[in-house]
Amino acid sequence: MNRRALLGAGAAGAATIAAAPAIARERHRWNLVTSWPKNAPGPGTTARRIAERITLMSGGRLTVKLHAAGELVPAFEVFDAVRRGVAQIGHSASFFWAGKIKASPFFTAVPFGLTPDGHNAWIYQGGGQELWDTLYAPFGVKPFLAGNSGMQMGGWCRRAIRTLDDLKGLTYRMPGLGGEVMRRLGATAVSLPPGEILPALQTGVIDGAEFLGPWSDIGLGLAKAAKFYHWPGFHEPNGSAECLVNRAAYEALPDDLREIVGAVCEAENARGMAEADWMNALALDGIEKTHGITLVRFGDDVLAAARAAADAVLAEAAAGDAATRRIHESYMAARRRSVAWGRVARHAVLDAQLRSAG
Amino acid sequence: MNRRALLGAGAAGAATIAAAPAIARERHRWNLVTSWPKNAPGPGTTARRIAERITLMSGGRLTVKLHAAGELVPAFEVFDAVRRGVAQIGHSASFFWAGKIKASPFFTAVPFGLTPDGHNAWIYQGGGQELWDTLYAPFGVKPFLAGNSGMQMGGWCRRAIRTLDDLKGLTYRMPGLGGEVMRRLGATAVSLPPGEILPALQTGVIDGAEFLGPWSDIGLGLAKAAKFYHWPGFHEPNGSAECLVNRAAYEALPDDLREIVGAVCEAENARGMAEADWMNALALDGIEKTHGITLVRFGDDVLAAARAAADAVLAEAAAGDAATRRIHESYMAARRRSVAWGRVARHAVLDAQLRSAG
Repeated sequence: MNRRALLGAGAAGAATIAAAPAIARERHRWNLVTSWPKNAPGPGTTARRIAERITLMSGGRLTVKLHAAGELVPAFEVFDAVRRGVAQIGHSASFFWAGKIKASPFFTAVPFGLTPDGHNAWIYQGGGQELWDTLYAPFGVKPFLAGNSGMQMGGWCRRAIRTLDDLKGLTYRMPGLGGEVMRRLGATAVSLPPGEILPALQTGVIDGAEFLGPWSDIGLGLAKAAKFYHWPGFHEPNGSAECLVNRAAYEALPDDLREIVGAVCEAENARGMAEADWMNALALDGIEKTHGITLVRFGDDVLAAARAAADAVLAEAAAGDAATRRIHESYMAARRRSVAWGRVARHAVLDAQLRSAG
Repeated sequence: MNRRALLGAGAAGAATIAAAPAIARERHRWNLVTSWPKNAPGPGTTARRIAERITLMSGGRLTVKLHAAGELVPAFEVFDAVRRGVAQIGHSASFFWAGKIKASPFFTAVPFGLTPDGHNAWIYQGGGQELWDTLYAPFGVKPFLAGNSGMQMGGWCRRAIRTLDDLKGLTYRMPGLGGEVMRRLGATAVSLPPGEILPALQTGVIDGAEFLGPWSDIGLGLAKAAKFYHWPGFHEPNGSAECLVNRAAYEALPDDLREIVGAVCEAENARGMAEADWMNALALDGIEKTHGITLVRFGDDVLAAARAAADAVLAEAAAGDAATRRIHESYMAARRRSVAWGRVARHAVLDAQLRSAG
């Protein structure tokens, strides 16, 4: 019987051979701590899938128990919990650690930075993963890209922001590097946790606020409090989440389980991103009628000034220490090439679509 | 000892519990047949990673042996090989089966269709996977998205194509639905296997040819034979690959191995796409100097006519049978929303980048 005939005899028959592997099997139990409320659409559903899939794909040899923010540790103590081994794995976003690791925002989102495709390319293929590994190594933590909340909008305001003059004097919720850009354009930028944005807008404590994209923003109720919704979200054109793994716990795993952890995180960069992209497109569809809001494009002078301010903010951040400088240099080279490739590919195809759509 | 203290006692220590699972373990051996030459950059490296990762993540309980095109079956017999159980799994592209399954090109690329992010969103979140499953079900084959060669370029020509007049009478290598669009614009579209493109261009049998993006095109030697390189690649703004799995073989797997197969395919939609995106951006960088070529944008009249022709070609395809009509309807609704969301998000951010870059 030749090989072709053997294979042809039936996929489930001839190709399955019963055997009893002699490998001793250990069971591992991991706690997954997150920075998200339970089942929060987007990052919360991503964290849940990661826990469930690792458990399932390992046949129960690595069981992962999910903890929402505050259940085992507070939202902003995820990094330290993984570092100290209180939890073996965490799901969060790197820019939360900017206070202790200056370069960390480069691995989540940067004003006028890489879009999701370019960010994944930089991490997986362009040396980004090695720079990230090196950045977290002193803490005994290994990072993985693990999901993406996608493109963002520029946020909600009680009046339209079309020019730089419109921005001056506004109090606007925008954290991180984007907030620093807003400050340089004459606004007062403030940082508020998601749960406090809506009441602050409703009471007039702030004039405007960005959060994520249409899906999550409407979910948070922001369409009820401000009627002008701005684009584009230049401050965060990417939304990469991260899995943080305690290096000792990771190294205690056999090869197959290590690969499972890595592949499950990778898969979320397709699935979580698809979820955000689909839900955002759906939420945007008919938004003006459904919610009585007006979509406003930030004017050219706002975008040009914001782009110049963003480059200055990044350059100043990079001036401080060697690690940030190396990351900044690598990131900016990736961005230059990604924009040039985007010009003739993604941007040009969408451009032709939009011209035809009228 | 409370739970917090127990967990704090050490990630690799307290969290690891030795146990001997009682599950009987079978070994499965699968053959993976592909439509690609051995180690072909892009789809070939994706197929290799899929074979290696399934084998590794299953701890050898599901070993996958990779076969290049022609080793076990020819490139265009992958679908039939999986259908008949000659192989348990295949890696290919759905549009190769258009001769027997009319709607199959919707799952690879469509002229002026969804870009990679929108395509993943439609498959994973928007009902695309269910339509695809139903389409292949009569053949006993289960499809998975599995890698992406990314955005394409419009192709190489020995003279510049700026207007519709420039296109008339040209003989151009462009297969599939894109080729049909070219025909309606007055060109003669031909389909040639990748290995025959360069000699045909060099001998003047054809005037122009598209293949993939800069990375693969330059690898094929096309920059040596034609000096004008056109954009955008409106005919194929996406390059999804597929894994085809014999349903009987799939159902013979335990839950953990099934999930591993699915997750490895998903992960390729992040990793394979990142590879293509990075390598294309790198290959484009300085291409005019390095290869002495001129980048040419198809003129507005070419793009507008191509867009109208593409819509007509798709509508005609959908008119034939109920399955294609359902898929066409779902796809076009996804495209409409994806373009509208792209306008205020991805396109607008790239637009602001390009204005600032000058």
